[in-house]
Parts: sequence; C-alpha cells; structure tokens
Amino acid sequence: MKQMARVGGRHRVVIDRVQPSVPGTREGSPFPVKRVVGETVLVNADILADGHDVVRGVIRYRRRGGRTWHELPLEPVGNDLWTGQFSVDRVGPWEYSIRAWVDHARTWRSGLQKKHEAAVATETDLQIGAALVAEAVGRARGTDAERMEALARLLGNEALSLDRRVAEALDPESETLVDRYPDLSCATTLDHPIPVRVDRERAGFSAWYELFPRSTGVSADKNGRPVRHGTLQDVINRLPEIARMGFDIVYLPPIHPIGTTKRKGRNNSTEAVPGDPGSPWAIGSDEGGHTAIHPELGSEADFQELVDRVRSYQMEVALDIAFQCSPDHPWVREHPRWFVHRPDGSIQYAENPPKKYEDIYPINFETEDWEALWIELREVFLYWISHGVQVFRVDNPHTKSFPFWDWAIESIQQDHPEVIFLAEAFTRPKRMYRLAKGGFTQSYTYFTWRNSPEELRQYLTELTHDHPREYFRPNFWPNTPDILHEDLQTGGRAAFVARLVLAATLSSNYGIYGPAFELMEHEPVRPGSEEYLHSEKYEIRVWNTEDPRSIAPVISRVNAIRRANRALQSNRHLRFHNVDNPNLLCYSKCDDTGDNVILVCVNMDYHARQGGWVEFSPPAVGLDGPLPFVVRDLLSGRSWTWSDYWNFIELDPQETPAHVFVLER
Amino acid sequence: MKQMARVGGRHRVVIDRVQPSVPGTREGSPFPVKRVVGETVLVNADILADGHDVVRGVIRYRRRGGRTWHELPLEPVGNDLWTGQFSVDRVGPWEYSIRAWVDHARTWRSGLQKKHEAAVATETDLQIGAALVAEAVGRARGTDAERMEALARLLGNEALSLDRRVAEALDPESETLVDRYPDLSCATTLDHPIPVRVDRERAGFSAWYELFPRSTGVSADKNGRPVRHGTLQDVINRLPEIARMGFDIVYLPPIHPIGTTKRKGRNNSTEAVPGDPGSPWAIGSDEGGHTAIHPELGSEADFQELVDRVRSYQMEVALDIAFQCSPDHPWVREHPRWFVHRPDGSIQYAENPPKKYEDIYPINFETEDWEALWIELREVFLYWISHGVQVFRVDNPHTKSFPFWDWAIESIQQDHPEVIFLAEAFTRPKRMYRLAKGGFTQSYTYFTWRNSPEELRQYLTELTHDHPREYFRPNFWPNTPDILHEDLQTGGRAAFVARLVLAATLSSNYGIYGPAFELMEHEPVRPGSEEYLHSEKYEIRVWNTEDPRSIAPVISRVNAIRRANRALQSNRHLRFHNVDNPNLLCYSKCDDTGDNVILVCVNMDYHARQGGWVEFSPPAVGLDGPLPFVVRDLLSGRSWTWSDYWNFIELDPQETPAHVFVLER
Repeated sequence: MKQMARVGGRHRVVIDRVQPSVPGTREGSPFPVKRVVGETVLVNADILADGHDVVRGVIRYRRRGGRTWHELPLEPVGNDLWTGQFSVDRVGPWEYSIRAWVDHARTWRSGLQKKHEAAVATETDLQIGAALVAEAVGRARGTDAERMEALARLLGNEALSLDRRVAEALDPESETLVDRYPDLSCATTLDHPIPVRVDRERAGFSAWYELFPRSTGVSADKNGRPVRHGTLQDVINRLPEIARMGFDIVYLPPIHPIGTTKRKGRNNSTEAVPGDPGSPWAIGSDEGGHTAIHPELGSEADFQELVDRVRSYQMEVALDIAFQCSPDHPWVREHPRWFVHRPDGSIQYAENPPKKYEDIYPINFETEDWEALWIELREVFLYWISHGVQVFRVDNPHTKSFPFWDWAIESIQQDHPEVIFLAEAFTRPKRMYRLAKGGFTQSYTYFTWRNSPEELRQYLTELTHDHPREYFRPNFWPNTPDILHEDLQTGGRAAFVARLVLAATLSSNYGIYGPAFELMEHEPVRPGSEEYLHSEKYEIRVWNTEDPRSIAPVISRVNAIRRANRALQSNRHLRFHNVDNPNLLCYSKCDDTGDNVILVCVNMDYHARQGGWVEFSPPAVGLDGPLPFVVRDLLSGRSWTWSDYWNFIELDPQETPAHVFVLER
Repeated sequence: MKQMARVGGRHRVVIDRVQPSVPGTREGSPFPVKRVVGETVLVNADILADGHDVVRGVIRYRRRGGRTWHELPLEPVGNDLWTGQFSVDRVGPWEYSIRAWVDHARTWRSGLQKKHEAAVATETDLQIGAALVAEAVGRARGTDAERMEALARLLGNEALSLDRRVAEALDPESETLVDRYPDLSCATTLDHPIPVRVDRERAGFSAWYELFPRSTGVSADKNGRPVRHGTLQDVINRLPEIARMGFDIVYLPPIHPIGTTKRKGRNNSTEAVPGDPGSPWAIGSDEGGHTAIHPELGSEADFQELVDRVRSYQMEVALDIAFQCSPDHPWVREHPRWFVHRPDGSIQYAENPPKKYEDIYPINFETEDWEALWIELREVFLYWISHGVQVFRVDNPHTKSFPFWDWAIESIQQDHPEVIFLAEAFTRPKRMYRLAKGGFTQSYTYFTWRNSPEELRQYLTELTHDHPREYFRPNFWPNTPDILHEDLQTGGRAAFVARLVLAATLSSNYGIYGPAFELMEHEPVRPGSEEYLHSEKYEIRVWNTEDPRSIAPVISRVNAIRRANRALQSNRHLRFHNVDNPNLLCYSKCDDTGDNVILVCVNMDYHARQGGWVEFSPPAVGLDGPLPFVVRDLLSGRSWTWSDYWNFIELDPQETPAHVFVLER
C-alpha cells in the first residue's frame, strides 16, 4: 500500500493526459517530443480537482538542467481541458511540466461577485477576503507586499461600506495583484517533466542531394567507360551546380577504404574482376576503417576543403555511417570479440538464409565487450564531427541495437546539439517509429512505394496527424541508389517531375539521388527489379550533367519555391482536399501565421491528361476573405481567379504534371 | 546523460505500447486495468528487435506480491504486434509484465531449415547448432538435460550424415526441448509491471434496488399521510418481493441519525416544520454520525438481521456513504480542524453562490490534519465492513479529494478485496473517469440523460470501445431520488419499460430507485424540474406496492433474462446494428464463447408505433450457420424465422416497446 506521506494528501488537483507527448516509454521514462528552434509547443492537459473551487494552472518549462523554470498560464477550454503554449528558442534538450492548484483567492472572489450580484454579500465574506489577502502578503515582494497589505486592511475595514469594499475586491488591478502570489502549498506538479528535443531549423526543413564522389566529374573513354576514379575535388567542382539546384545538404555514400576480400563485381556479381571498385558499403581495408578516407577519393585535406567549400554555399556535407565491416576492416583484427565466431574459426558473415553476403561482417551487439564497442562506434561520429560534419545519414540503423542508438545519439547531442541524424531504415513501421523516438532527427519513409493519391493521402495523414507528428520527421526520396521505382522506370519525365514535386511539397525534408534523378536514369538491372542497371554501388558511372534533357531546371524551381514559401517548410498544417478524379492528388499547406498558403495539385497518371474539380475553400484553411480569390501557379507563373470553392483543373503529363499554387492575398 | 551500465546494452529487444493499459499515471505509476474473476486479459504489445533474428516473448503474470511469475507465450500477429492472454482466477491485485528476447537457437534452426531446403547447409551450420544446444544444457533440469546433451552430441557428430543431423535438429520434439531452455541473459523485461485489479463477479454484473427504509411498509392514514416511520424490519419484510423481482443488491440511502439544525422541510423547503424527518444526507446528530443508525430505523441488531436476511436471498446490502456533516454531527465538535472556519467563528456551510446549503458542512480536504481525517473516513467503511457490508454507494465522490479515494480504496481493498465501491459522480466526464481509474469499482453515468438512439449509440461506443472499457464499469439508472427525467414524466408505461430494458441490457450493471420506479411515479415538483414531487429525500412516502399497475412483473422478467443469458452479464461484446428508423435502437451482445447472442430492439418513441428494417447478420457477430435463423423474443415468448440479414420489426408503445431476442442455435 502507498504510504500516506508519499501521497501528498492535501494536493487536491490531479493532472492527466498531458500533450504533446510520445506514446511508450524507455526504461520507464518518456521519449522526447521534437521541435525545431523557434517553434511553439502547444500544451494540452486534463486538470481536475474535486468540488467547485476555482483551479489555476501554469506551464513550467526550461532548457534541461537550467536552474529556473519559466512559467506561462494555462487556460481552461472546457470539459476540464487546459491549454497553453511556449516557444523554444535554443537548440538542445528542453523539458516542460505543469503545475496546478485550487486557488482560494479566486474562488472567494468569484463567489463574492455572484453574491454581490444577488445582493447577499455579507461582512463575513469581506473578512474572509481580507484574511486571504493578508495571508498572501507574506509571499509578495517589494511594493506589491505593501499594496496587498493596504488591500487587506481596506477589505477588513468595517467602517467602510460593503459596496465600496466589494468594488475594491473585484477591481481588475486587485485581481492581478492577488493572482500574482497564489498559495502553492497544496499545488500539484506533474510527476515527471516531459522532455522536448529542440533541433536546429535544418532538422525540419532540408533538401538533400546524394552523389557518388567516385563518379563525379568523370568522362568516358571511346568505349563509354570511365577514364578514371572521381575524387572529392571533383565534388568540389560540382558544388556550384548543386547549389544552383537549391539543395542544402550534399550527402556522400561511404567514403572509406573498400575491402577486397569477397568484393562484389559490377551489377552485384559475386565475382569482382580486376578494376571493379567494390561497394562503398563494404567498409574497411588495410588502409583503414570508418575514420579513414578511400585513397582514390583524396586526402583528409581534400575532405576538409570539401567541407569548407560546401559550407561557403550555405550547404552542408552529410556522411553515410554504415556500421558493418569488410573482412579486411581493422576492427576485425583488433576487436575480434565484436563479431560472431563460428565453430570452424571463421567469422560469421551477413546472411539471410539461404542468401550469403560474404563481403560484409555484421557487428555483434550482444558482445560482452559492448561498452568498448559502443564507445568506439560513437568515436566514429565524433571523429567526423571534429572535421566539421554535422549531418549523418545512418545506414540500416534497424540492424543495430535500439539501445545503442538511444544512448549514442543522446550522448553525442549532449555535446553537439546541432548534429542531425537521418535514419535509413526501410523496415516495418514500428521499428522506424522506434528509431525516431530513440533520437533520430529525420527518417526515411515508404514514400517511394506510395504511388497513388489515396496511398499518399493515408500515409501522410498517419505521419502528420497521428502520434508520429510529435517525433518522426519524414524525409521523402523519389529515388535512392537502392530503389528505382517502377513508376520512374516507365513514367518518363512526368513521373520524375511529379515525384519530385510530391516529395518536395508533401514533406519539408526530402532528397534525391543524383545525377541519376535529374538525368532521369530509369533502366533496371532486370525487369521487375528496383535495382539500377550498372548501379553506382558496384561501378563508376559517367554522367553527362550537361545533358539538355536534364530536369535540373525544374529542381531549381521547386527548391526556390520551397525557400520562398514558409508553408512548405513544415508539415504541421498539411491538409488534403477533395477532388473528383482519383488520379489527382490535391493538398495544401500553410505556415503558422496562415499568411502563406500553398495548394498543390498533382496528376499521378503519367500517361494521360487528367482533369477534375478541386474543392479548396480559404475559410477551411483558416483564412478570411471573400470570393473570388486568386491562385498563382509558381511552376508556370500563370494565375487564375477562382470565384467558387470548387474549381476545375487539368494537368497534362506531356507538359507539367503539377500545379504549385500560392494563394494571393 | 544515461549511464551505460543502466542502459543494459546487450538487451536488443524493446517492448512498447503494451495493452491493456489505462491512459495516464498517478505519481508516475500506471492505473490498474480492471477485470472480474474468471475473465481473460488479452495482451497486445509491440515487440521489436534489430535485424532479422527470431524473437520470442512471454507474458509474465501473478497475484501482486506473489513469489513466482506464471508465464504464457506471446505470438506475433504481424507488423511487430504480439498477442497472448491469461486468466485471472482470484479476487485482488494482479500484475503482468512482458519478457522478450532474441532467440539464437530458433534463429539458427530457421536458417538451417532454409539452407537445407536450398541444399546449402554445411557442417559448420550443424556445429553452430551443437554448440547452442550444449550451452543450453546448463539451464536444463533432469532428463531434459540428458536429452539435450545427447542432441548436442548428435548434431556435432561428424560421423553422421548431414541429412540425418538436420532431420534431428528440425524434429518438433527437439524444437520443443530446446525452446524450453532459452538463453535469457539478454532478455528485456517491461520496466514496470502493469497492475490489474480483479474484482468479484458482482462487480461486473449486478442489479441494484434502491429504497428508503423509512418509507417501507408504511400505510396511510385517512388523510393519506404515513401512519408511522418505516424501519429496517420493514425492509426485511419486503425482501421476498425484491428478491422475486430479481435484484442482487438492496441499496439503502444513509441510515444515520439526521441533524436538526437548519433541517430541510418537505419539498426541500428551507424551513422544516415539526414532524418533518429531514434529509438522510444531512448526517449526524447527538445520536451519532457515520457509524450510527438512526434510532427510528431500528437498532444495530436490526441492521445485522437485515444484512443476514438479505444474504439469505443471495442478495447484498449496499450502504450509501456521504462524507458530509450536519451541523450536529459529532465530528464538528470533536474535529473542528476538519472544517473551514469563517472569520466570524462560524463553520463554513456548503454553498454554490449565491445558493446556500446551511444544513450541510463540507469536509475540508486541505486540512493540515488530513492524515487523521483520512484514517477516520476509512474507519467508516471498515466499521460497516465489520458488520457484513461489502458494497458501498459513495455519494458525490467528486466533491472529495481524488488522492483520498486513491488511497482509501486501495487501502480498504488490500484487506477486503471483495468490497465494491460505486461512484455516484454526476459530473464532467474526465472527473468520472478519474474516479474510476483511482479505484471505484462501478460508476454512475449519463445514461439518464441519453434519450435518443443516436445519443445512446455514441455514449455506449465511448464506454465500451474506447479507453474507459479497461477501467470504467458503468451502472445505468433510469431514475434516482434526484432524477426524474422528463421522459419518465411524460412517456408513461412505455417510457418506464423502455428505459428499464435499455438500462438492464446495455449495461451489465444497472439499478432502479423503487418503489417509485415500478409504480411509475412521475410527478415533478414543478414543470421543468427533475425533482420528484413529495420527494422521499425530505418526507416519508406511502407506496402501494400491491398496485396492479406496477411493472414489477416486467422487472422480474428482465432480471430473469439477464441471469439466464451470459451475453447480458458483460459489456465487452456490445455492438450496434443498422436500422432504418431513427426512433429505434438495435444492438446485440454475446458472451465470450459466442454461444449466447442477444439482440435488443427498443422503440424510443413512447407515443407512436414505429417499425423499421434491422440489419442483423449472425456472421457479423462471429457466428457461423446458414440462413434462415430463428430469433425468440424473451419478453413476449414469440419466435420469428429470419431468412435474410435485414428484417422488419415493429414496436408499439401501447404494448411492449422492446424486443429482447435470443438467437436460437
């Protein structure tokens, strides 16, 4: 049985069902809610007390570890629900709590007012108030204490008329004064504060461009074969173009030395031939492991130059961290306990029986040497952070243990709160959500495989209106080196443009794998496969980025629209709109103020013109203003005046399969 | 930052979102889920591990404080959701937890099977298995250890063929044997067990009959005035009739001495006249307080006889516990600190400004003497428990502090787990839910004010399909001494019968306030009021329970139907059925096995015959069997053969406004 002392028997208020919060717990503690700097946290809670007394409540919030709490009032909105909000203005861990109490001064004042109106207020009622105010004097400071003392004297002064004293009691200035010094001796505070993880703005709004350095700037010989291995310097040379397209993050697949044992050949053949460069994800050789740079890409100095030059374009480098080893990785020799050993003395390679991946040794997270392992893995991040990298794309985090990520990300962000982690976990939904709860800043999603308007509507509703909205930041990719979706294989330019617009406007974080994307690379390794033919994962490719058919100009336009419209810089206010043609998807976003409203319409039939009536009513997205209103398509520059809430649109895949309308004010 | 040691780095499984559970916490601990003895607890949880290894999980459950946990397997049902169930067979506090782990033996066996099918299994694969089994020997007991040792030897015996050994490895008996001794060194167990409160069956299935002892057995003089004060002996005399109607619980309004100071007169007048008996809720006089019996009702011996005689009918007495005091209550003198004192020296009476209730002193739950107060209040329950009372109806619990109830109920049930508490809290929904979370066994509801089919459908859906289903047990009352709903004032016999059938079949717990109900008392004190004219709260009434118009026979029939049909003894499987007339409400219930199915149709228009097509398909409620099927109306005894899933029914308020069909098998 609970000890009475622990129960706190005089604390009559109970607080329940506080939002925002993340469902589930880790070791009995709640997961943090996520926000970016400058956002507000809208708090809702059930606050209940017995009886009919007046209750008051405040939000208490602070940066974690801060000495003082800030307080802002909570207001009741009916049915025992209370609401308030606070802003988070610095990156790092925050926390908020709630305090609420039965307020006897307000209860008395409210009763006095009613009695006064019914003309039944008595001397005793005034004396009760005088006592309450006198008691509050002890909690007041400076002139407030003096003013309250005067007020108490006045209320208790029987020489004055009741009316005079009631008027003073109910005077708004008296109210404000007394409210400032409530009796908190029986106040209830939330058992545990709710953590809030505040990230920098790019965590919530970013455009990623992935490219293989070894294929960058490489021209072809007369047989069409690459004349050489691309380098970090080649990437530096391409930066102006990437910046022109409007990207924020230049993401490089692993840049480490590649193993030779069991190296994979072109098109993922199990036998490499001389000259095959191997997969960048088969990490480690005599030349080093996760903190080394593949010599053919360049030196540490080249890398440092790349980081600096990228930054000069207001972009950032993202590195790919893949915690797995080629058989040649130094860890295999130095830390044999981090791998599973088989009875024949060999180390267990990756397998998905009966398939074998002999070029990769997975790390054994059940090793008894797990503490040393964790520290060394964290060192990898810290090493690159010390070289100026603040963004990491983590390869297959769902094949490493959840407790490791929980610890590693919290531990790294403690000293480096600006660091962003993107989880590349294409796995079952709850594992993806758990990684995000455990700390990943952004997450890959199923976007690539949501290929009809209805699928996207359902998926985005889950992501932006259900519990993931508080902790899971989607990052949408129309393609990756692993995924060339059938729509891109068969849909032509319309599919590429439509998927680009969808990714870039449905999700405030998105990315493409280029130059394959802008050059509309669409040949699969074989029919029915999502692997690219001549995948860059296994060979160096030659890309003609000057090709006039490149859709780079469209990409530039879309990224410029994103930057100019705050509505597209968050997913908080996404909503879908009715349209009477199932091939069309229509949705809007607006910014927090409602000043910027974007309406997007996409034709997801890449082979035929589709038209339909779209329902879009400015009042439904929270805007005033009479009909008609003007929408301007930011892709084409054309404007329309809409005199009704239902309007006809038509989109031709031969031209541009999407409208990105801005609502003109 | 979390200490690594605390994190438990080798424990790769994470467990999240465990159901059943109750939303919210109290002092950081979860509220208990409620069940009655014999019910099962169906457990669902997300269980995740990194990678592709095979995971196993078990439910662990026990009576709280028990030394050993029982275990039952959890099974994956897809999308990382696992499910299992256990039964609770004793009253009291239980708890359950979940344990899950990566099972290397099963992972190995599953891989071996696939490799074997692909004809790529190797000697090494067998040696791995031999080592896993050998390692498990140390965890095994008795002959199992010997059998596992033999199995390990066989798997590792290179002299035997691979096929022979693979066959042995995959033999179901080997699987069962090895599965029995998993390696739990890296298992994850839920941070905190989830509490389950198991009540006796009557907590979930009960029919209450409320009556005022002082009006019982009283005849009228020639002016129609009561000739005397009824007694507990009169109640004893009426027991056969109450038992015949089929009730389980005989509930008495407060039986304590009534104060005289500021006593209320007839029809709640503020001036009592000599002879007015006062309100039983104005508790306490010189003759005693909450543990005394009003002398005019009888002696302690009479009460004891009543308790015993009620029990002889397989019924129980419920007492009304109202923690408030008349100005004459002994506590006012003995414990002045338990009340609020006004500056003029008087004690603060109850008020809802500008209304005053001067016959009642509320208890101050913020008193610094709260510990003594709590203990004394608990003593009241313990006193009556020691006199054989095991059911309490608690008056206005929402005007006493939540922490008190949390403590008191847990504390009382620790020694008296069979005690049932019914919360009479007609207040806002979250306060009602919070009282139930905090321990109340059953709860009054808004049933009385849900007067259309659509209102009832929505309300019951909330109660039986949303979170309240795990902790809030509704108790439906068509009338109470405080509430004579307008429908009963104007709806005649049809309204009484319909509300009875609705209460008794929508909710497994229900009650009526009699004899007012069976005699269809329907005069309000004034138009627009829900108070009875000549309310028994303020005067002794004369009831002619022999009146031939009494609907007691209908009540008997309905209670007999409830007892004979397990479907009506729980709300777990309530579902509503389509009907094309908005005046009709149709719903079904079935028992856990699905063997007993009841379909209820009620005409909620008490003034006109209403007919409509009802959709009822036995497959939709989980039953096989071809069309046609037979439904028998347990009220009328008539049967119908239905050859379609849509059938026409018609209900005439002049006859019986409801069907209670049983599906014949």
